[in-house]
Amino acid sequence: MRKTFNFSAGPAVLPEVVLQAAADEMMNYKGSDMSVMEISHRSALFQSIIDETEADLREVMNIPDDYEVLFLQGGTSLQFSMIPMNFMRNRKADYILTGYWAKKAYNEAKQYGQINIAASSEDKNYSYIPDCSDLDISRESDYVYMCENNTIYGTKFKDCPNSKGKILVNDISSCFLSEPMNVSDYDMLFGGVQKNLAPAGLVIAIIRKPLISETVMQGTPTMMRYKTHSDKKSLYNTPPTYNIYIVGKVIKWIKSLGGLKKMKELNERKASILYDYLDNSTMFHGVAEKESRSLMNVTFRTESEELDAAFVKAATENNIISIKGHRAVGGMRASIYNAMPIEGVRYLVDFMREFEQSGGNYGK
Amino acid sequence: MRKTFNFSAGPAVLPEVVLQAAADEMMNYKGSDMSVMEISHRSALFQSIIDETEADLREVMNIPDDYEVLFLQGGTSLQFSMIPMNFMRNRKADYILTGYWAKKAYNEAKQYGQINIAASSEDKNYSYIPDCSDLDISRESDYVYMCENNTIYGTKFKDCPNSKGKILVNDISSCFLSEPMNVSDYDMLFGGVQKNLAPAGLVIAIIRKPLISETVMQGTPTMMRYKTHSDKKSLYNTPPTYNIYIVGKVIKWIKSLGGLKKMKELNERKASILYDYLDNSTMFHGVAEKESRSLMNVTFRTESEELDAAFVKAATENNIISIKGHRAVGGMRASIYNAMPIEGVRYLVDFMREFEQSGGNYGK
Repeated sequence: MRKTFNFSAGPAVLPEVVLQAAADEMMNYKGSDMSVMEISHRSALFQSIIDETEADLREVMNIPDDYEVLFLQGGTSLQFSMIPMNFMRNRKADYILTGYWAKKAYNEAKQYGQINIAASSEDKNYSYIPDCSDLDISRESDYVYMCENNTIYGTKFKDCPNSKGKILVNDISSCFLSEPMNVSDYDMLFGGVQKNLAPAGLVIAIIRKPLISETVMQGTPTMMRYKTHSDKKSLYNTPPTYNIYIVGKVIKWIKSLGGLKKMKELNERKASILYDYLDNSTMFHGVAEKESRSLMNVTFRTESEELDAAFVKAATENNIISIKGHRAVGGMRASIYNAMPIEGVRYLVDFMREFEQSGGNYGK
Repeated sequence: MRKTFNFSAGPAVLPEVVLQAAADEMMNYKGSDMSVMEISHRSALFQSIIDETEADLREVMNIPDDYEVLFLQGGTSLQFSMIPMNFMRNRKADYILTGYWAKKAYNEAKQYGQINIAASSEDKNYSYIPDCSDLDISRESDYVYMCENNTIYGTKFKDCPNSKGKILVNDISSCFLSEPMNVSDYDMLFGGVQKNLAPAGLVIAIIRKPLISETVMQGTPTMMRYKTHSDKKSLYNTPPTYNIYIVGKVIKWIKSLGGLKKMKELNERKASILYDYLDNSTMFHGVAEKESRSLMNVTFRTESEELDAAFVKAATENNIISIKGHRAVGGMRASIYNAMPIEGVRYLVDFMREFEQSGGNYGK
């Protein structure tokens, strides 16, 4: 059992049993006398890793057969260009701005076409999810873009936006596999693995097959065409094999706990410990509006920046790691991904309570 | 000591001491109570990993200060587009075709401009390195492109091509850190790490600083501008942190052996065991022309495809892994990267000798 709790927004905490298994297998994977890092991506041994990882992902997320699962490189930031380059036919798209990453995706898309802001919560520093039941979508829009969980602001969509028949693309990086979702409500889901699934360096994209087409924007690099990766089952070039291996282990861990329904229960239980405390504290309060709260990233602050800084300092000295909020929001942020044990959240809340009781003079 | 020897062209064998250290530190990196996989890329702990890795790389390669070192994602295949997108001003470039990967880079570049083949060994299935002392370079060429070590064909440049003052870009993926090289003979060196340095998922690019410019081709994704990564010291987005950590360990291992001069000696000794045997065998012979032979990838074959297949089968049954040649060449290929111990090469040659003595009926 760990004594340090890592609340980093990503790269982030991974399940101890997964790390232990990775350590145990480091010198000898399944009797091969090799590390997974060393195995050719063209070998039967690696093929079984990627096949099993995809099959397990399809099972836990209940991904319909008419969706392709792709393992990609370049980070989600590369997806911000790949999406317009692959999907823009009319050079028009609609973006829902709910935070830093959605805005970044929007700014990138602007170099490829005319982008409409279908909804935004920028007016209140992205502290809420706007109503997306009746979006003002461009008539010839190629797609609607959203980011489901907003890591920096601590908000999450509770309902799927009404894209009015347009293609709906959803960045699920920071809520990936945190709860069940209805995949067929979306045309593309994608996310970086470095929050809930594996070490950084891999993006998983789940795309409705008919969307994957030869027809892309002129000048689109071969590596940025979904078709390239789909045709070769994610083995067009050398994929990040070790990251895929860890994803596989993490999904097996989720399955062993009871799948995404159970994962959601655990995540709700963890988040409620922290939110309940915040709602009753006189020193700390939550930043995101209640009905938009994320289960993964909990943003909170005190009444003053000085007190925030004192708390971060004291917490860090007491084995609470990466609790400082993003500069765009300030205050604190506790990222409590799947792999954060409930003991970690209890430890944090106990510490916050002590800090509050000390009137901000903890340990002095 | 391993009993299995992995001759895979990449992902490939890594030093046992590096893997052991990675396993030992998996649950607790430097007393942090965290795995390197879990550490925020914005933390001081990771910053020291990337800083030290870059400093050690600069030291062993003797990289001049006016070169930037970038840690990038997307594989070398993404570089095939990034290079033209960043460097083409006149939409003209010259490519030296010495193999599959150079040809792939050439084909990708063609979608961005007018590409001249400055030299080629395609006439003899890339079994040699063409004379590049007096290349026929386009007058307005933006750069000259080469691939120093040709993994599939087992060839390597022995002299730096004369690019006649034009920018010279060199893919060093499969000879990265295998011997000393004069960095300032080139304007850009780049390579995937999955052969000599780390698990797949990271590219290291070494670029002369003045070449890194705001001015790129229209439509170049933000993630594909060298300037983006250079401005943020490879931390524009989340880099593949774990891969960078392993690179760092591998470079320290090279330093502990005595640096690149010593590495070259070791590699020459290993390669000569295999080449000497090939030159004296009546059953096996080398594929690449003698004066173009690679120290890293040794291609060889017998007189018949049937005998090749029988050898590959027998070798595989005797702990010799991934010895089959690429389909473009046939026969066999032994990739003997830095981390392949001399015992592995001796084991292979002993086995080849036994196979030869059995007249191809080994174990029957």
